[in-house]
Amino acid sequence: MIAIGIVGGVGPSAGIDLASKVFSHTKANRDQDHINLFLTSCPSLIPDRTEYLLNGGKDPAPGLEKCIAYLAQCGATAVGVSCNTAHAPQIMGRVKVPEGVKLLNMIRETSTFVSKVFGPEAKVGLLATLGTIRCNVYDKYFDSIIKPDEEVARAVHQAIYDKEYGIKACSGVTDKAREVVSSAVDHLKGKGCNVVILGCTELPLVFNGKRSYNGTDLVDPTEILAIALIRETEPEKLALDSEILCKLDGHKNPC
Amino acid sequence: MIAIGIVGGVGPSAGIDLASKVFSHTKANRDQDHINLFLTSCPSLIPDRTEYLLNGGKDPAPGLEKCIAYLAQCGATAVGVSCNTAHAPQIMGRVKVPEGVKLLNMIRETSTFVSKVFGPEAKVGLLATLGTIRCNVYDKYFDSIIKPDEEVARAVHQAIYDKEYGIKACSGVTDKAREVVSSAVDHLKGKGCNVVILGCTELPLVFNGKRSYNGTDLVDPTEILAIALIRETEPEKLALDSEILCKLDGHKNPC
Repeated sequence: MIAIGIVGGVGPSAGIDLASKVFSHTKANRDQDHINLFLTSCPSLIPDRTEYLLNGGKDPAPGLEKCIAYLAQCGATAVGVSCNTAHAPQIMGRVKVPEGVKLLNMIRETSTFVSKVFGPEAKVGLLATLGTIRCNVYDKYFDSIIKPDEEVARAVHQAIYDKEYGIKACSGVTDKAREVVSSAVDHLKGKGCNVVILGCTELPLVFNGKRSYNGTDLVDPTEILAIALIRETEPEKLALDSEILCKLDGHKNPC
Repeated sequence: MIAIGIVGGVGPSAGIDLASKVFSHTKANRDQDHINLFLTSCPSLIPDRTEYLLNGGKDPAPGLEKCIAYLAQCGATAVGVSCNTAHAPQIMGRVKVPEGVKLLNMIRETSTFVSKVFGPEAKVGLLATLGTIRCNVYDKYFDSIIKPDEEVARAVHQAIYDKEYGIKACSGVTDKAREVVSSAVDHLKGKGCNVVILGCTELPLVFNGKRSYNGTDLVDPTEILAIALIRETEPEKLALDSEILCKLDGHKNPC
C-alpha cells in the first residue's frame, strides 16, 4: 500500500489543515479516488517546540519519532510534520525514520517552491514563532531571508501563543491577532520583501487561504507540504489549482 | 494511553470534520491540553456504503474492520466512524472490534441526544443518503422518524453524490446543493417536523454549523459523536459551548 502519513497535533488544527489541503489538491470526484492517509494527533507526546529550543523545555524529538513509527506501522510511505518549529535541526535532525518511509522536509519544499515560483531575485521575508526565527530554521534552506525586527517578531509570537487572544488558544483568529500579523506583513514589505512566508501553521488562518495581502505575495508552507505529499505518493492525482499552475509557469508571465 | 480513534475517509472531509469537532469541544488553551487522537482516511479500503446496500456493490465491512485494527494498534481506546450509512446494521453489525476498544455508535448517540434535548414530544425528521433512508439506519434507534417523500429523498441524495453539483465531488457546497437541501428541511417542516437530523456527514456543510434553519432545529450527528468521543476518553476536558449546555438544561426553559 502507498499512503500519506501526517504527524499532526503540533498544534491539532495544523494537522487537520494539512490533511484538508492534501484532499483539496487531489483530483477526485468520489471518496475512493482519494489517497490513503493516516494522521496522528498526539500533543501530549510532543512537548512545545519553542519551549525546548529557547527555554530548555522537554525534548519533542522522541514523541515525533514515536508518531512516525505509528504511521509507518499503519503503512504510511511518505510522512510530513505539520509544524515549522519542529523542523529546527536541533529537533528534526535527531528523529530516526523507519526503513521504507520518506520523511519530507516542509522547509526544504518551501524553499524549492519559492525559488521556482518567485525566482532568484525575490526578496523573501519570514513570519514565525520566536523558536523558528531565533533557531534559523529557514536560514539553512534560503540564501537570504528577511526577518522582522525583534519587537514585531515578539508581537507575532504572542499573536500565536497568547492565552487571551492567541490563535492557538482561541477558536478562530481574534481581531487583535489579525491586526498584529497583518501589520507584520506590511512591516516586512517596508523592509523590501515582495514575498512573505507564513512560517507557522497558525498564520495562514489570518488570511483565510488568500495568497497575497496588500500587494505582498504570501506563501503557506502547509499547502506546499500537502502538494509534496501527493507528489511522493500518487503524483498523477495532483490537482494543482489554476492559480498555482499559473505561477509555476513563470511569475513574470502570469496567465 | 487513552486515545480517540476516527475512521475517516468515508468521505475524507467527514473524517477531518469529526476530528475538528473533537478539538473545538475540548477545553484547551495550549496544544498539550488536547486529547491524543488517531485518524485513518483510507477510502480505497472502504467501498461506497450506499452502493453496497442498494446495488450489490463491494462490501465495506472488511475495510472498516481493518481501519479500526490500525487505530487499535496505535492505542485508540474509543473509536468513531464518521459515516452515517456505514452504521447500517448490515454493515456495522458485522464489524469485529479488538479487545480494549469501544466502538461508539453515532446513530445511538444521536438518538440519546435528541431525546434529552428536544424531549419525547419532538417530531424528528431525517435527511440522508438513499442508503441510510431505505435501510432504516435511524429507525432502529428512534420510536418514530419522519422521512422525506421519495422525490425529495432522491434530490437530497443527488445533492450529495452528483458529479456536477454534489457536495462530495465539489469542494464546497454549490448553490444548487444548498437550495435542494434547504428546501428539503422546509419539506420536512411541512410534514410536521420541528427537528431535522442532518444524517449524512456532508449535509451540515450546507448550513455552516448553524443549529437551526427557518425555524427548524438542526442536529449534526458528527458533532454529537465528537462530544461522545471526549466523554469516553477524557470527559473532564469536555467544553460544551453555551448553546448546547443551555439546551441540555431543558429545551423548554432556554437560558
